[in-house]
Order: sequence, then structure tokens, then C-alpha cells
Amino acid sequence: MTDYGYRDPYVGVVKAVIKSINPDVEIIDLTHGIERHNVLEAAVMLAVSAKYFQPGTIFVVVVDPGVGSARRALVIETTHYILVGPDNGCLTLMAEQDGVKHVFDVSNTKYRLPEVSSTFHGRDIFAPVAAWISRGVPLEEIGVEISYDSVVKVRIEKPTVSTGVIKGQVLYIDVFGNIMTNITQREVDEAGFQLGSKLLVQVGSKRELCTYETTFSKVPVGDYACYLNSWGYLEVAVNMGSAAEKLGVKQGDVVVFSRAS
Amino acid sequence: MTDYGYRDPYVGVVKAVIKSINPDVEIIDLTHGIERHNVLEAAVMLAVSAKYFQPGTIFVVVVDPGVGSARRALVIETTHYILVGPDNGCLTLMAEQDGVKHVFDVSNTKYRLPEVSSTFHGRDIFAPVAAWISRGVPLEEIGVEISYDSVVKVRIEKPTVSTGVIKGQVLYIDVFGNIMTNITQREVDEAGFQLGSKLLVQVGSKRELCTYETTFSKVPVGDYACYLNSWGYLEVAVNMGSAAEKLGVKQGDVVVFSRAS
Amino acid sequence: MTDYGYRDPYVGVVKAVIKSINPDVEIIDLTHGIERHNVLEAAVMLAVSAKYFQPGTIFVVVVDPGVGSARRALVIETTHYILVGPDNGCLTLMAEQDGVKHVFDVSNTKYRLPEVSSTFHGRDIFAPVAAWISRGVPLEEIGVEISYDSVVKVRIEKPTVSTGVIKGQVLYIDVFGNIMTNITQREVDEAGFQLGSKLLVQVGSKRELCTYETTFSKVPVGDYACYLNSWGYLEVAVNMGSAAEKLGVKQGDVVVFSRAS
Repeated sequence: MTDYGYRDPYVGVVKAVIKSINPDVEIIDLTHGIERHNVLEAAVMLAVSAKYFQPGTIFVVVVDPGVGSARRALVIETTHYILVGPDNGCLTLMAEQDGVKHVFDVSNTKYRLPEVSSTFHGRDIFAPVAAWISRGVPLEEIGVEISYDSVVKVRIEKPTVSTGVIKGQVLYIDVFGNIMTNITQREVDEAGFQLGSKLLVQVGSKRELCTYETTFSKVPVGDYACYLNSWGYLEVAVNMGSAAEKLGVKQGDVVVFSRAS
Repeated sequence: MTDYGYRDPYVGVVKAVIKSINPDVEIIDLTHGIERHNVLEAAVMLAVSAKYFQPGTIFVVVVDPGVGSARRALVIETTHYILVGPDNGCLTLMAEQDGVKHVFDVSNTKYRLPEVSSTFHGRDIFAPVAAWISRGVPLEEIGVEISYDSVVKVRIEKPTVSTGVIKGQVLYIDVFGNIMTNITQREVDEAGFQLGSKLLVQVGSKRELCTYETTFSKVPVGDYACYLNSWGYLEVAVNMGSAAEKLGVKQGDVVVFSRAS
Repeated sequence: MTDYGYRDPYVGVVKAVIKSINPDVEIIDLTHGIERHNVLEAAVMLAVSAKYFQPGTIFVVVVDPGVGSARRALVIETTHYILVGPDNGCLTLMAEQDGVKHVFDVSNTKYRLPEVSSTFHGRDIFAPVAAWISRGVPLEEIGVEISYDSVVKVRIEKPTVSTGVIKGQVLYIDVFGNIMTNITQREVDEAGFQLGSKLLVQVGSKRELCTYETTFSKVPVGDYACYLNSWGYLEVAVNMGSAAEKLGVKQGDVVVFSRAS
């Protein structure tokens, strides 16, 4: 997972480095379309996607606005997985969700490429580190164990519920303009929203009527729906339209759901 | 083949699900750039691409505006291939082209993921179904056989020819702005168009002169050419330009070719 | 590497053709996001990426504005690699960098697909040729050996240095708007630029102050930096911004660096 996009040969070169160290490893592109330098987006997308991967999978995440600065390069061993990436929080939501076991600083590992650039650590550090791990090199040999306390974190605020009102935050806006919040089944139940009930969704000064449903296709074309999305989070969508555009929403915005009666 | 695009981790997660069921299966991305919810585009692109794949290939097509509604999930066995996708027509052009053998409704298959969301059947139904098929589970065990008559179809109208005039339809506009029609060699021969002859191409109120050639690079830069494209369909292009933009054409538009003398 | 983009199924079909000839070959997508018909961009990106791939790798490059014309289809054997693509220069920077051993004209090879279209030689010629090479068919059997002198070249002008002024050219603008020039460590040393020194960068009538650093994150957000990029070329960037947009630069533009004192 990177923010390299699909125009430059960055991703291809990262794969070439991995395959030249371990030709037998299987590489899956989670996505390279993370918004440039959007560490929170990377952290969220990694956390929601991870459980669909087999235990033992090594995740390489390169969303790295601080490349070339003093930020560390990390390997985090969690209960089921191994995470490789910069020390800026992009790994931490998933690490905490799966359970942190050990953290290693690999900034100065001998398992880097011989020449390390200041701007492309995906190729020069993260790819070779991941490839050598996949070949069975022990993590202790690759890096220096450090405390998870010292790791830079990304934190999602917890949504709050009071008498039928949920206040949450926009975690992510997908390519369809669907707005994913940090609200889960638990808060929806606590607020007592029922399937089919009408809600008001408010972002900034905009307020719209939406129906709490199982999915967006349950409401008429052009109408707002909200539903627990495929990752388990409350999402606002417009059937056959872009909710994010219509509401003028961006990542991090506060969003409030209340009953419309 | 999906309309998931390249920004979100949807495609990566679908592959993770497939690989966790069958690590040995080979996955080829046909494209994930189908226009959102454009079932006809998916159907056309699948039909033209399919024959380049080896017999036995399993195609997973997820262009699925009706996800979460009552639309069925299908597996279609054709003469050479197996097609997996929603019952909205996206599989039918290819199925009819290759010859339908059996159709199965897999909406309630036990080979789904344990939890099925309302919005991401690519991950929860289509991916695991395809993966289990690739492992050799018989189709009868995965779904319930149904009649092809009951399947939702996408139909392309046949082009018509009369005294040197061909009337067809725009099937697809590619990333270069080239306009692919539903007209084939047969109609071109019937209309008597010769290589090098000048034609008028008309879409709506716009009419332009174009040369019938073997390819767009045969005409001067900026000029219109039409030719049987690499899939075998008559296509209109502007050498080093975008014909779709210049003609203001969209998918489904009627397009008329006539001799320019 | 192609300019096919990610919307159409072109890339998927090319892979299907390769895999149907050699199911065991490993395919890495270098990029399919080369600007349409931009042969120089393809040539540059291939040359900078190549060394990260294992010796023996076969590179297929299809950026091919002349497809369907008389331009030849080539296979170039270099010291470590085999290059397959059209005779328009897209292979030549890399070929000369790695050392040309033999060149073959494969335009009329019997290892093409049975039907060759006028517009999709990636599928009909280059993919099958590469796949058969990967299966061990000798190059002499696939094509006719020709002289490298007869091959169409892409040439990058050499940068010039005089008394603390370097005059170079824009080779490439990446997806972040970073401007890569043809200037290397050698010219920077010759001009006597020191890390941390202030430079003037001039493109057309625009002139901006920038700091020569190891990477863009060393300067304040919004400021210009220049640095030897991860491929070894002098690059101009704006920290968290797009230098290309701010300077109005395009590929091929002349760019001049001088001391700002």
C-alpha cells in the first residue's frame, strides 16, 4: 500500500527489488491510490483491509511525507501479521487492532539496498526489509527492538452518543464519494436507530435527510442513505451519486446523526 | 474486472480473499477501470477480451449497481470459460458469444464468506465462489441450476445497412477518446466501403469527414480516421487527438456512416 | 511498460496472451501510466528503473504512436536484459546504458498471433514475442538481426556547466509535480553547489529561489528544494506542493540553475 499512484514506475521498481531478493514471494497490491501524504487514510484503509489477508502476511505501507528526514523506519510484529513502514502512524491503527508483539527500528539495517536515496525508501529500505523477512531472516537481526510507546501514533477519536444523537468523524471518502465515518454498530444500537428510520445528517452548516438502511440501493436514485458499510462503519451515500460532493465533506470533518422526527 | 477503480483497497482485498482460499491460483487484472455502474461497458469489454484467455479461465466481473438488492449472484458455465458475477447482464454478451452450457444461482451458496455485507459482494460472494471453483468444487455444489432464460440480459442492437449507409451505435469510448461502434467487417463490406475512401460520420447534429483506413496513423495528425479496430469493430479516431471529445459522443449514441461523394 | 492506462482491458489482455504461451512466467507492471504517445518519457523511465530488475528480465515497452505504420518491431539484447518494443527510440536509452549486444527486427516474426491487427501490436506481436523468448526460443529464430545504427534513437542532450551555472533540460515530471532534469552529481560537483546553498532555478521567464538539499522535506512547507533524486538526477520540488504547476514547466523545457548570491 502506497501513495505512489499509477503513473510513475515506483511501484514496479519496488516489486522488482522484492522479487530479486525473494522470487517466490507473492505480492498483492492493496492499493497505490492513497491520497498523497495522507497518513490517516493509509492507516484506516490498512486497518479495515487487514483481516482478509492470511496470517503471516507482510504488509508494506509507504505513505511517507517525512522521507529523508529523521523519522524512523519500522517493522511491527503483531499477533497475526508483520507490518513494515515509516514511523508516522500509518501502521498503528492496524497494529493496535491486531495486537502489538514487538517493534523494531530498521532505519540503519544492513538489509537495505547498498545505496539509500533520500526520497525513495520504499525501494531502498522497506522493500528489501520485507523481502528478507519473507525469506525468514529473524526480525532481531534486521533491526533494533524498541518500545511501542516511542512510536508515532495516529488516533481516531471515539464517537459519542447522547439521547439519539451520534457525533462522529469522517474517516475516509471513497472513489464513489461515499462518506465513511468512525461510527460502528455499537453506537447505532446505543442511539436506537432502526432500519428504515429517517435521520438527519449534519456536516458543518449542511443538513440532509437520510434513511438508515442496509445499503444505498434501498433508497431512490438521488436520495441519501446511511448504512453500516462493508468494513462495519456507518457510511453516508447518495444512490447513484456522490454524497461527499453534495455535502462538501472532507476527511476529519465532524458529522452528526440525529433522528428526523 | 470491476468498476472499483484504483484508489480504494477493494481490489486488493478481493485478491486477498481469493488467495487465502486458493494460494496457487493465478489472478490477472482485466481492468478495474470500468465506468462506475456501467454494466454495458463491462459486458462489451468482457466479450471482446475473453478469447485471449486460456480455456478454463474463471472470469469474475463485479460491476454491480444493484448490490444489496434482490438481484441474484450467478455462475455461468460457457463452452470454454466460467463466469462469475451479478445477474444484471454484465456476463451475458460473452456467455452468448462463447455458448451457454449451465447457469447457477449462487446467491445463497455456503461458499460465501461467513459474514456477507450488503455492499461488497465482490469480496463476500464472488471472490470466494471463484476461488472455490478454481479448487475444483463442482458448480452443482456451489449453486442451484437455473434457466438462462431467467437471466437479465444486456443486448446490443444490430447495425443496419442500406445503399451505402451504415447506422450503428457507440459501444465504448476508450481512454484515448476513440469511439468503438457495434459495426463489423460484415456491414462495412455490405456497404461497399473501400480502404482509402472518404466517409461522412454523423452523430447527432455533428457531421465530420473521415477516411476509412487500416488505422488512425494513416491520416494526417488532427484528421478523422475510421478503421476496424483491434477487437474487430469499426472505430472512429482522431490521429493524436480525441474523437469522442471533438464529436461530443457518448456511449449508446447512434452513429451513421455514409459515402462522402 | 505501456501508455495503455488503467481504464481499458488492454493490459489484462496482453498479460493473458503472455500467460497462455508461458504460464510460468512472472509479470511485473513497471507502469502503464506513461503519458500517451510520450516516447521520451517511456525511454527515460525505462532507463532509470531497469537496474533494479534481475539480469535476464525481458522488458516489454509499448508506447507506440506509429502502430500500424511501417515502423519496425524490435528485440534488443543488451548486456543484462532483453528489450521488446517498437522502433521509435523508447528502448534506446536503456539499451545504450546497459550495452547493446544484438538487435532483431521481429516485425514479420512467425511468433506473432495468427491475426495481427493494425492498432494493438502489444497484444499481437510484442506480448507473444516476449513470451516465446521467456520460453527459450533463440532470438535468431524469432527475428532477423539488424544493425543498431539503423534503429531510431531518442537522445537526451548533455547538460552544460560554466562558472557556477548549469543548463539542463526537463526529462520528466512525476505525479507529485516534481521536476526531474538531466543533471547529475557530476555537473552539480563541477558547478560547485554545496548542500544547503541557495540557488536560482529559471525556466522560461520564471525564476525562483530554491535550496540545494538532500530531499524536499528539508525545506519549509511551500518552499522550493532541489536535490539529487532517487534515480540520481537533479530534481526540483516544492515541499507538499507541485513545482511543475508553480513553475509552469513541461517536459523538454530548458532549466538553468545558478548560485543565488
